[in-house]
Amino acid sequence: MMKLAALQMQALPGDQAANLARIEKAARDAASAGADLVVVPELALPGYGAGAAMAGLAETADGALMDSLAEIARAAGVAIVAGFAERDGADVYNSAVFTDGRGESVIYRKSHLYGPYEKGLFRPQAPETHLFEVAGLKLGMLICYDVEFPENVRRLARAGAQAVVVPTALPAGPSGSFIAEHMIAVRAFENQIFVAYVNHCGSDALFTYAGLSRIVAPDGRMLAGAGSSDEALLVADLDPADFAESAEANTYLRDAG
Amino acid sequence: MMKLAALQMQALPGDQAANLARIEKAARDAASAGADLVVVPELALPGYGAGAAMAGLAETADGALMDSLAEIARAAGVAIVAGFAERDGADVYNSAVFTDGRGESVIYRKSHLYGPYEKGLFRPQAPETHLFEVAGLKLGMLICYDVEFPENVRRLARAGAQAVVVPTALPAGPSGSFIAEHMIAVRAFENQIFVAYVNHCGSDALFTYAGLSRIVAPDGRMLAGAGSSDEALLVADLDPADFAESAEANTYLRDAG
Repeated sequence: MMKLAALQMQALPGDQAANLARIEKAARDAASAGADLVVVPELALPGYGAGAAMAGLAETADGALMDSLAEIARAAGVAIVAGFAERDGADVYNSAVFTDGRGESVIYRKSHLYGPYEKGLFRPQAPETHLFEVAGLKLGMLICYDVEFPENVRRLARAGAQAVVVPTALPAGPSGSFIAEHMIAVRAFENQIFVAYVNHCGSDALFTYAGLSRIVAPDGRMLAGAGSSDEALLVADLDPADFAESAEANTYLRDAG
Repeated sequence: MMKLAALQMQALPGDQAANLARIEKAARDAASAGADLVVVPELALPGYGAGAAMAGLAETADGALMDSLAEIARAAGVAIVAGFAERDGADVYNSAVFTDGRGESVIYRKSHLYGPYEKGLFRPQAPETHLFEVAGLKLGMLICYDVEFPENVRRLARAGAQAVVVPTALPAGPSGSFIAEHMIAVRAFENQIFVAYVNHCGSDALFTYAGLSRIVAPDGRMLAGAGSSDEALLVADLDPADFAESAEANTYLRDAG
């Protein structure tokens, strides 16, 4: 059994130090709740709405920001998945890092950039499958728009992921509500895996976010969910054995062909 | 604009004549409502629960049953999509036929058979894409379990389907409710197409059906929906122009890669 925490967060665009401090507090709170892993939103470190400042906030996979995050994980005793802007030479990626402060970190780069804002700031990465293990559970990462493509979740589930964690920056509006309230549960159900969908809340100069972060089970039920407006730290126990009956009735991975 | 009707139906297992008469009545009612097409459930002609009698009820694509159905469509002035057991030599397929009583009929054979009941009665067909046009709208067919695989709907949408009609036999229960109430809307939304999901209701000796038939729009909204227990003839207008805003915001087919 793995205990997962998810921080629905109001990031401060451009203030990486403040966002890092917010993540540090969440890591301590998550550890106090007994969590093995805490997930924070897409580009939580620079702020999704950092706009033209994004490239200047981008850091390398072996740079000081990643060291700080690893040190927070090590000190709190909880693993972290966090969205950041990743610099690699002249390129900037919309990335998420997994670190537990001890072993090698794992970085996933967003494959499906949404709209002109993201396409203007980042380079897309061909879809990649990087799994890692936390408290006996195999996990994969996607970022925001990636999870809206069933092909991406299927790829991770076929590779053995039992849970997919998804830092996101979903804007408020009818499409946003539909994605949070229906699509995320279907992604879990159609692969019989857990999905943690971790969003921003509130507004910045550029965007208003939908909130509605949630942790859903393989049978599509919501194990923990946040409202649309406020920060929240969600915590849920992820145990595949609790959903053996659903897995037995819905053999999608076996039957997909 | 195409007007679609869908019959949530309580079939009589083994009584193909009675089921044909029920479909004839639905065709007349659909035509009276101005519909261009009426869709009836999976294996509506033999009855989904026909069990051991199924093979004896199977008919060829050019046989008398298909002639009768075409004649009903021609006489009522409405096209029909209906599930039937299709004999092809020694093989029996779980099929759906489109006929308007004038042009060539189109047959789709189920690719993803569900569970030992179906696997014992039918041969699966490798997934095939057969599109047809009704009142200017391009349509494709899937049958029941097929639509639960996002790959199948994506295939049809990429081929140009603007609507997918799905005769089904969804059993009552928590998984059934989840599929009807969440998954069908997501299949529509993630491809920005219409989906008509047309189920049985009531019980026979082998199964209790979920009902909950529905016609959903590209933005995930339900245009018409039935309850869980009773027969119902749903009617909805399918006009892609009504959902141009959703298509503009959710460019999944363009971005899927």
